[in-house]
Amino acid sequence: MTTKILLDESHLPARWYNVRADLCTQPPPPLHPGDRSPIRPQDMAPLFPMEFITQGIISTDRFVVIPEEVRDVYRLWRPTPLIRAHRLERALRTPARIYFKYEGISPTGSHKPNTAVAQAYYNARQGVRRLTTETGNGQWGSALAFACAQFGLECDVWMVKASYDQKPARRSMMELYGARVHASPSEETSAGAKALAEDPYSPGSVGIAISEAVEASAAPDTRYALGSVLNAVLLHQTIIGEEALEQMAGDPPDLIVGVVGGGSTFAGLAFPFLREKWSGRFDPRFLAVEPAACPSLTRGRYAYDYFDAAGFTPLFKMHTLGHDFVPGPIHAGGLRYHGMSPLLSHMYELGHFEATAKSQRECFDAGVLFARTEGIVPAPEPNHALAAVVEEARRCAETGEAEVILTALCGHGHFDMRAYERHLSGRLEDPEAPPEQIESALTHLP
Amino acid sequence: MTTKILLDESHLPARWYNVRADLCTQPPPPLHPGDRSPIRPQDMAPLFPMEFITQGIISTDRFVVIPEEVRDVYRLWRPTPLIRAHRLERALRTPARIYFKYEGISPTGSHKPNTAVAQAYYNARQGVRRLTTETGNGQWGSALAFACAQFGLECDVWMVKASYDQKPARRSMMELYGARVHASPSEETSAGAKALAEDPYSPGSVGIAISEAVEASAAPDTRYALGSVLNAVLLHQTIIGEEALEQMAGDPPDLIVGVVGGGSTFAGLAFPFLREKWSGRFDPRFLAVEPAACPSLTRGRYAYDYFDAAGFTPLFKMHTLGHDFVPGPIHAGGLRYHGMSPLLSHMYELGHFEATAKSQRECFDAGVLFARTEGIVPAPEPNHALAAVVEEARRCAETGEAEVILTALCGHGHFDMRAYERHLSGRLEDPEAPPEQIESALTHLP
Repeated sequence: MTTKILLDESHLPARWYNVRADLCTQPPPPLHPGDRSPIRPQDMAPLFPMEFITQGIISTDRFVVIPEEVRDVYRLWRPTPLIRAHRLERALRTPARIYFKYEGISPTGSHKPNTAVAQAYYNARQGVRRLTTETGNGQWGSALAFACAQFGLECDVWMVKASYDQKPARRSMMELYGARVHASPSEETSAGAKALAEDPYSPGSVGIAISEAVEASAAPDTRYALGSVLNAVLLHQTIIGEEALEQMAGDPPDLIVGVVGGGSTFAGLAFPFLREKWSGRFDPRFLAVEPAACPSLTRGRYAYDYFDAAGFTPLFKMHTLGHDFVPGPIHAGGLRYHGMSPLLSHMYELGHFEATAKSQRECFDAGVLFARTEGIVPAPEPNHALAAVVEEARRCAETGEAEVILTALCGHGHFDMRAYERHLSGRLEDPEAPPEQIESALTHLP
Repeated sequence: MTTKILLDESHLPARWYNVRADLCTQPPPPLHPGDRSPIRPQDMAPLFPMEFITQGIISTDRFVVIPEEVRDVYRLWRPTPLIRAHRLERALRTPARIYFKYEGISPTGSHKPNTAVAQAYYNARQGVRRLTTETGNGQWGSALAFACAQFGLECDVWMVKASYDQKPARRSMMELYGARVHASPSEETSAGAKALAEDPYSPGSVGIAISEAVEASAAPDTRYALGSVLNAVLLHQTIIGEEALEQMAGDPPDLIVGVVGGGSTFAGLAFPFLREKWSGRFDPRFLAVEPAACPSLTRGRYAYDYFDAAGFTPLFKMHTLGHDFVPGPIHAGGLRYHGMSPLLSHMYELGHFEATAKSQRECFDAGVLFARTEGIVPAPEPNHALAAVVEEARRCAETGEAEVILTALCGHGHFDMRAYERHLSGRLEDPEAPPEQIESALTHLP
C-alpha cells in the first residue's frame, strides 16, 4: 500500500503556469490611488524587478521558464512528496482517498520559498543588493531571508511587533539566515514613527509593516518583496500544482481543497488542475477555505481597495473586507488579511471555484486529528483546508462515494505550538467577523 | 547536478542489521547492581517487551525482520532523502563531496521515531496498554508520544523540569499526540518526591526522570521505553545506514561522521557500512563526535556504571564520566549523558571507529554555515557532526583530496532557536568538562 508518491529531480518542473493566458477576460487593472488611472508597468519598477512585473502584468504566455539558478535552489527540497493519508482515512472511516501535497519540508517549513527564491534571483540578476519586506507570523520573512542568503542579498524584515515579541523563534530563524529583523512599528521609517506617535504601545499590523517595508525600499539598490496576492507570486506557486498533476496521474482528483489568505497556496495547487479541466482531461470541484474571522471571499465585497491599511498602495479590484478591517485574534497569522488576490477574486467572480469559511476551533480539531493520524503537525493556516477535507470525507462516508480529495499541506506548525496548547486546554478563541464590523469597514472603501 | 537521492517505498528496508552477529567478542553482560551477577533476559521483562529484550541481548541473527506494521508507520516519512551538500561544499571551497542523510523530516523531527515506533509496536502486540519514559529536551518524548498514538497506547512522559519550563513547545507537541507530560521531579513517584524533598526548586535531570519513569512503569499493563543506549535501540536505527548504503552506492564514502550522545544515530548510520567494510566492499574511516562538555568516549573510563544518576539500574560496562557527573549547560540536551552505549563502547575498545570532541561554539558556527548554505536549520546535536565534517572538508581543501564524506543530520533545530539566538548574539556558553570534575565523578563508580 503506497503512502508517498515521490518524484526525483529529473521531474522538477521546468516551467511555471500563467493562468491568465487561458482566461477569456483579464482581471481589471490596478489603479493609481490618486487619479485612478491604470498603473503602468514602469510605475512598479521602483518596487519590483522588471522580470517580476512582466510576469505579473504584461506576459500572457501560458508558460514561464524557471531559471536554472532558481531550479538549483528548488532542488534543496523539491519536488515535494505527495502523501496518501491512509491513517486519516481510516480514522474517518471514509471511502474517500485523501492526498496531500506536503510543502512543509522546505527549509523554512512552508510553500513561501517557492516565490521567495524566484524574487531574490530576479532582483540579484538586476543588480539589486538589498530586499525589504514585512512579515506577520514570520513564515514569509524567513522564506525571504533564506532566499536572500542563497543569492548574497541583504534582507531587512519588518515584523509585526506582536509577533516579534511572541515568536522569538521565527525572528531568530531570520537572523540565522543573515537578515535584519525590525519590530514594526519602528522608528526607522516615517510610517513607523507616525504609528508610534499615535500609540507608543502599538502591537503593529501587517498593514503598517507593509508601509514600513515599502518606504525602506526607496533606498539605493533596494527593492521590496511581497509573499502573496500578486499575480507573479501565484505564478511561482504553480510549481506545486504542476508536480501534483504528475503525482496524481494514476488517481485523478474529484475535489481540490486549499486554504486562502492572500491566495497563493490555493492558486499554486489549483491553477494547473484548472488548465487540465479546461482541456477536458478531468472535471474536479475546486474549493477555497478561508477563516470565519476574516472571510474576504464569502462575505467581502468585490471592489477596488488598498493592499495596505494606511492606503499608500495602488488600488486593486479584489474581494475585500475593507482595508481598515481588523480581524479577530486567530493564530493563522497568514490569513489575517482584509483582501484576496485580485486574480483569484476575478476567477471567483467567473465561477471557477467555490469558497467556504471555517471557524478556528473546527480547524484546530482537524489539525489535532491529522497530527495524531499522519504524524505531521500542520500550521494553523492549512488546518483550514484540513477542516474542509475532513468535512468532505465524512460526507463521502455517509454517501459511500469513494471520491479522491487532494489538498496542499502548505506548512508545518512547529512554531505554532502555543496555539495548539491553547486549543488542547480549551482556551482557544473562536472569533467570527461581526457583520456590523464588515459593514463599517466597507463604508471606507476608496 | 543531482542534489537529492530519493528512494521510493519499494526500497524501504525489510530488515534491521544486528551488528553483534559480526563481532568476534560480545560486549560484557549487564550486571545486577547488588550481587554483580549477570542480568538474565527475564529480569528485564518487567521493563521491556520480550521481543525487544530478545533483539538486544539474546539474538545473534545478523538480520531482524521489520514487522509490516512498523514499516507501515515508517512509510509516513521513510526512506529519508540523502542530500548532497553542494552549497556547503562551495562555501568551503573544498573538493570533498559531502552527503547528509536527513532524518529531520520525520513527524517529530529526528531519528528517534525509528525506534519509538518499533518499541510501541512490540509493546502493543504483547498487550501492554501504557508506556512511560523520560525526556530531556523533548525529542525522544515526542517521538514516543507519536508512536503511541499510532498503536493506541497511553503515554506518560517525565520531562526534566528545566526543559518543561523552557521548552513549552515540545511539551505541547507531546500533548498534541495525546501523551501526558509530567515535570520531573514530580510528586507522582517516590523518586520524584525524594528529589523534591531534598530540593523543592530542583531543575531536574535526565537521571531523576529515568528513575521516575522506571518507577511508574511498575503499574499494571505498563512498560518503560528508552530512546538510546540499548542494543535493540541501536538495531532499530540501522535502517538509516541500510538506506544510506543503497543511496551511496554510486559514490562510496571515504569517511562516515556521526554525533554520539547515547550513540544511536552514529550506530544507526555506521553499522551497515561497517558490515560492508568487513566484507571488503570498501574501507571508509568512521568518526564519532561528542561534546567537549560531556566527553564520555574521549575522556571517560571504560567501566561498569549505572545508567541513571540515582544508581537504580543494572550496571553496564561502558565509557562513562561517572553516573553523578553533571555536564555543563550545553544546548544539545540529547548529548548531556554521562555514559555511552555499551555496545558502541565495546566496539570503540575494539578499534572500529575514532572519536573526537567539539566545543559548543564550534558546533554552532558549523550549524549557522549549514543553515545559510543548505537551508535546513540543524538541531544542536547534529551540529557536532557538522563541525567535524566542516573540519574534514577544510582539510580536503588544503590537501586537494576529493574525499566523499557522509553524515547523518539527525534532526532539525526548529525547537532550538533560542540557542541559535544566543550564539548569534555572542552569548553562547562554551563549557568544557573540567578534569577535576571528571576525576571526582569517576571515584564514585560502583
